[in-house]
Order: sequence, then structure tokens, then C-alpha cells
Amino acid sequence: MRALLLVSHGSRRTQSNEEVNQVCEQLKEELGESFDIIDSVFLEIASPSIPEGIKRCVVAGSSSVTILPYFLAAGRHVTEDIPAIVADASEKYPGVSISLTRHIGASEGMLKLISSIIRQG
Amino acid sequence: MRALLLVSHGSRRTQSNEEVNQVCEQLKEELGESFDIIDSVFLEIASPSIPEGIKRCVVAGSSSVTILPYFLAAGRHVTEDIPAIVADASEKYPGVSISLTRHIGASEGMLKLISSIIRQG
Repeated sequence: MRALLLVSHGSRRTQSNEEVNQVCEQLKEELGESFDIIDSVFLEIASPSIPEGIKRCVVAGSSSVTILPYFLAAGRHVTEDIPAIVADASEKYPGVSISLTRHIGASEGMLKLISSIIRQG
Repeated sequence: MRALLLVSHGSRRTQSNEEVNQVCEQLKEELGESFDIIDSVFLEIASPSIPEGIKRCVVAGSSSVTILPYFLAAGRHVTEDIPAIVADASEKYPGVSISLTRHIGASEGMLKLISSIIRQG
């Protein structure tokens, strides 16, 4: 069983967190064949936290958990905080393959996305 | 003369801010025909600030400044802080059209971008 967790910062504004949850829902259509679980977790403020999200995946029987930092630039959250949490979880669940992908950053797709926002005004 | 400012949060990590500057550089190739100035500004921590960036555009002779919040979800920075700064600038420079686009959020392009990161591992 394979799981994907989208990690975002977490906001005091509920709608902001729900916006990220909505991205996860849409991802299920895009990536549902590759992952049995696709869920949203938060570094701060909102819940579930990253450790809670990983625990849920493990309890559900996941043998692999892929973690994608939903951040636009590699600040300290991306380079230090999230990797440290993932390292802790890997130690806690040695039988589960827990991997971290790169964050959302500059790419052809991002430039097209920015251009489309500009065109919409 | 038209200007585009990409607003990001700003990080204590210089490389993170430079990553956003790099997106701006790449945007010049994508949108250089529509904008005479394409620049990066920061809400906090890094510089130039949003007011500094807008001032530079006005001093350079821009009649319109488009501001794009480079944020993944509409937390308080997107819904309150950035609009308040833009409203102040509009009042300060009544002869300049200063507009705010939506932030980077859920879209077909974003789902494809996430999928491509997952495929790269």
C-alpha cells in the first residue's frame, strides 16, 4: 500500500488549509492509480501534523509514504524542518519506506501557470 | 510602461529568496513582451519590500503595476497583508494603475506540476 502526503505550512485561516485539502482531493483523480492514500498534512498551526499523517498511513498498512513539500521555495522549513521530521519518522517506522520529494519550484509548468494567472488579470 | 512584481514571503535563507528571483528571470523570457519590468519583491525579511518595488516601478515611469502573490494558499498574507499594502500604494500613486492578481493555487497546471515531481521521485 502506497501513500502520498502533501505537506503545507498551515494557516490560522481555515479556508487556506481547506484550499490545500482541495488540491489533495483533485490529486486523487490525477494520481489515484499510483497511491492508495493521498492526504494533506501541516507543518504548523493546522492539523493533522506531519507525524500524525505518517502514523495514519502506517496504521492503515502503508509500506511506502511519499512526502511532497507544498512550498514554493526552499526556505528553512523545506531544507531543515521537514527533513528532520521525516528522519524521525523513518527511525520510528524502520519497516516503512518514507521518502521526501523536492518542493514546488521553478519549472516550465510554473512559468505557464504564472502566465495564465496574468492573462486572467 | 508596464511592470510585473512577483511577491513572495521572504526567507532568512538567501538561497530561498534567490530561487524566487530566478523564477522572475525565467518569467522575463515568458512574459517579456507584455511587461517592461519584471521583478521580485518580498512581504517580509528580504528586500526589496513591496512598497520599495512599487516605488522603483513608478520612478522608472510605469503607468501600470501588476502584482502577483507568489503564495500557494490564501492565508492572511494573501487576503489581508498584501491587499492592504497595495491599497496604500494606490493611494500614494493615483496616476498609476496598481492591480493585484490571484495567488498561485489549485489549477490543472498545478496538478500536472505535482504529478511531474512525484514521477521524478
